[in-house]
Amino acid sequence: MTNILFAASAQSWANYEAPLTAALDATGLTYDLRTEFAPADVDYIVYAPDSAVQDFTPYTRLKAVLNLWAGVENVVGNDTLRVPLARMVDHGLTEGMVEWVTGHVLRHHLDIDACLNGQDGVWRPFAPPLARERTVGILGLGALGAACAEALVALNFNVMGWSRRPKSLPGVTCESGADGLARVLAASDIVVLLLPQTPETENTLDADALAQMPDNAVIINPGRGPLIDDDALLAELDSGRLGHATLDVFRIEPLPANHPYWAHPRVTVTSHIASETRKVTASQVIAENIRRGVRGEPFLHLVDRDAGY
Amino acid sequence: MTNILFAASAQSWANYEAPLTAALDATGLTYDLRTEFAPADVDYIVYAPDSAVQDFTPYTRLKAVLNLWAGVENVVGNDTLRVPLARMVDHGLTEGMVEWVTGHVLRHHLDIDACLNGQDGVWRPFAPPLARERTVGILGLGALGAACAEALVALNFNVMGWSRRPKSLPGVTCESGADGLARVLAASDIVVLLLPQTPETENTLDADALAQMPDNAVIINPGRGPLIDDDALLAELDSGRLGHATLDVFRIEPLPANHPYWAHPRVTVTSHIASETRKVTASQVIAENIRRGVRGEPFLHLVDRDAGY
Repeated sequence: MTNILFAASAQSWANYEAPLTAALDATGLTYDLRTEFAPADVDYIVYAPDSAVQDFTPYTRLKAVLNLWAGVENVVGNDTLRVPLARMVDHGLTEGMVEWVTGHVLRHHLDIDACLNGQDGVWRPFAPPLARERTVGILGLGALGAACAEALVALNFNVMGWSRRPKSLPGVTCESGADGLARVLAASDIVVLLLPQTPETENTLDADALAQMPDNAVIINPGRGPLIDDDALLAELDSGRLGHATLDVFRIEPLPANHPYWAHPRVTVTSHIASETRKVTASQVIAENIRRGVRGEPFLHLVDRDAGY
Repeated sequence: MTNILFAASAQSWANYEAPLTAALDATGLTYDLRTEFAPADVDYIVYAPDSAVQDFTPYTRLKAVLNLWAGVENVVGNDTLRVPLARMVDHGLTEGMVEWVTGHVLRHHLDIDACLNGQDGVWRPFAPPLARERTVGILGLGALGAACAEALVALNFNVMGWSRRPKSLPGVTCESGADGLARVLAASDIVVLLLPQTPETENTLDADALAQMPDNAVIINPGRGPLIDDDALLAELDSGRLGHATLDVFRIEPLPANHPYWAHPRVTVTSHIASETRKVTASQVIAENIRRGVRGEPFLHLVDRDAGY
């Protein structure tokens, strides 16, 4: 018998009980899935970082923690966690992110906002340049960044990517290191932020970095709020030097109603909707990792706890 | 010596003289390119259907007419034209169309309009369904429709296509005939019109066809204005049964400032910008066809004058 603790909100349990049960049944394991156990009886924790479980010390036979979220910044530094931690890599989440990023890149590329604001009877026959004449820089080349890069390459955008560790992706000019970041920022008409949140990535777009971007450049942030120095960004937008910021994530969520981003003519706020984990596919990912653990096979999507992601 | 008459507007000549000369030079042909010739001396006409040349009878040694436009509806029925007619198939035009169509499909898929209209401090954490849960129907599977279908398939949309003659495209459910059109209309959340303008395609979306579409369906027309019965569409939009129409082409262009489309809350008018022929690549297409004619090789992109496209 494998005991699986579901440690997340009641709403999350309501969403996941049925699909996770179905996915676990499909593995053929003998298991018990509940929201409460005596800690010493638990083999695996399906985990949301906002769960009541913050001290893993009593979970003495715990084999692994399977995160329900793609972001692990609120659990990776937990010193009481001594077992493997797996992130959520859900193809539904990846697909949703690719659709959102591609949609907003094309929105800015085609200047759809100007079209929507120009329903005034005035015929304005301007055609935008082709995608091959635009450079999109993607900061962060993990599962999400790499998938977005692939979709944008397929649409003929000139795609540059930046990651902490050197990577190679077909059709993408990949950079790393501080010099590489400067090259990506200086060349990109549109920058997409898909870095993990770590102490090193906080304020990746600070005043110095923003100053390296071309005039009228656009920032799209579906990653994490703290990647941007908000005051520095507002200064660049207020002055009209940068073109626009489409922001889906914030240091405080929900973004407070009086935050200057809401009313700023050069900012589009969306409500952390760029992508979400899909219950059915995410349940399959978790069930597969538990099956692997029980069978002694290597876990998928393990977090490098030293790197923080 | 090959004599090439450029029969289009003065503005068009200003745009094309340099790139067309460069493209013809690259073929190695001996040629004379001008905007005026004695008709009996002309071998090829580079042609815009709004040119002063409407009677081809005096062009007694003419080998072919190379259309500068993708649409041929204003030349294909000219009874004085007895030589091959080639349409413009320009990869720049195709790329621009794919970008515009993909951008507006994603705009409607992601409900970007609602996001732009919701910059009011209210956090609305709704995530749209995945593209694989949406069906896009593309009417017209020529060079443009096929390229758009391919891009949407790559983004995981469920893509259906309809064409007069049966076709087959990877990953696309291809239909033809009246029954096929009904199946595509009934299944599509978003319909994209990329049919040629012919007597048979006029009012493809008439009241009967519109009535077959699902509630809240969206229409995107970057093809030709007469494909839609405007009064029937306005009736379906006024009643709120259909969701939205994004229209780039119209029976009269520029669309008159008092046309009800401009002010309609469920219509987005764009100013025939979905795509335009790019001078450099279009010039290469024309030069290649003239080279083929001079060398006795088959022309590319010939119009089937019986079919009208």
